[in-house]
Amino acid sequence: MREVFQNELDSLADMLVEMTQKVSVAMEKSKEALRTNNLELAEEVIAADVEIDRLQLELDKSAAEILALQAPVARDLRVVIATLRMSASIERMGDLARHVSQQVRIRFPESAVPDDFRQILKDMTTAAVRIAHAIQELVSEPGLDAVPTIDDLDETLDTLHLAVFTKIAGSNLSPSQVADVTLLSRYLERFGDHAVSIAQRIEYLLTGSWTSELIPGTD
Amino acid sequence: MREVFQNELDSLADMLVEMTQKVSVAMEKSKEALRTNNLELAEEVIAADVEIDRLQLELDKSAAEILALQAPVARDLRVVIATLRMSASIERMGDLARHVSQQVRIRFPESAVPDDFRQILKDMTTAAVRIAHAIQELVSEPGLDAVPTIDDLDETLDTLHLAVFTKIAGSNLSPSQVADVTLLSRYLERFGDHAVSIAQRIEYLLTGSWTSELIPGTD
Repeated sequence: MREVFQNELDSLADMLVEMTQKVSVAMEKSKEALRTNNLELAEEVIAADVEIDRLQLELDKSAAEILALQAPVARDLRVVIATLRMSASIERMGDLARHVSQQVRIRFPESAVPDDFRQILKDMTTAAVRIAHAIQELVSEPGLDAVPTIDDLDETLDTLHLAVFTKIAGSNLSPSQVADVTLLSRYLERFGDHAVSIAQRIEYLLTGSWTSELIPGTD
Repeated sequence: MREVFQNELDSLADMLVEMTQKVSVAMEKSKEALRTNNLELAEEVIAADVEIDRLQLELDKSAAEILALQAPVARDLRVVIATLRMSASIERMGDLARHVSQQVRIRFPESAVPDDFRQILKDMTTAAVRIAHAIQELVSEPGLDAVPTIDDLDETLDTLHLAVFTKIAGSNLSPSQVADVTLLSRYLERFGDHAVSIAQRIEYLLTGSWTSELIPGTD
């Protein structure tokens, strides 16, 4: 029985890993679509997002089944609850990667990125791709090594997001260009926030520092 | 035993209602702070958001305890899972109300709202307050009556959000003003999305249309 249960937990973890892989690919492609104003690539990201949504639904269904049929307690229960939360964050990261590609599509054949903002948005998408890879790594092999990297990359994204506004204030962009850049920057900044929230859940699971807070008396 | 359990479920519902009340107040105050460029009111919203976050943590803790100690199945389990999801959405609505007030604070003593955008942002905040009230009503007395209203208000927010961009394209705002308006509009549009997601969860709980999808074999 325990073995069956462990298999079910493993299958939850596998789905979580698969979601992070797809989010990584989505952000890699969005970065490239933005850099090269590649409509085809942008369309790929937009089309592929339904698959991430489907995986989240499947994962949530499995998690609910485990709760219903196995009634896990203590650490197992925390894993299932954390997985439900993480799947929501990863699904949202997929949406944000899609939003970046949607900006490419909306402006095409013009570029969504004004020349003066090429570098800063390249820096942001680079940080976003790295944070997606770090989350993928963290979910594949949970350990605390990747957590500081994720925090650093999120700080980089926050700093660049603020820098975008300073740069906007001194720019001579058209109003629509400002709106584009503002939204792109916001999407990438939020992408980082979700990564941090996933990292925190894994950290809590591994260190137990969340334990007493979350489920007193069950451990 | 069943009675104790029902009390616990009721207390989850009470916390959810309390969260929606606080979110309603936050959006009402943010609307007014934005309209009258009232820094004091904006500060109130910003300070009060920690209370919504605290309630979410408490609710999550209680939900986890119920899962651990009562091992609910069938409908009860769906209620607990849905509550966990809804508390995350309501907490996020609180963040977005806070973000609106933060825009007021960032620009103060200047106004975050350019004259030409007063009306459209007033329309958006009005829709946001109404959707917050509708969610509060729906969570207080779950029924399907409020669902179409919530969908309509969300559609209003989406339409106004698009109209903001059309208006921006033809405006002579400064770049920073465009960035402000873009962010405000985005926050309000997202506020509506979260409301819809809450309404959908309640709808699924009431009609069971989510049931077979989410937890096959437990009902």
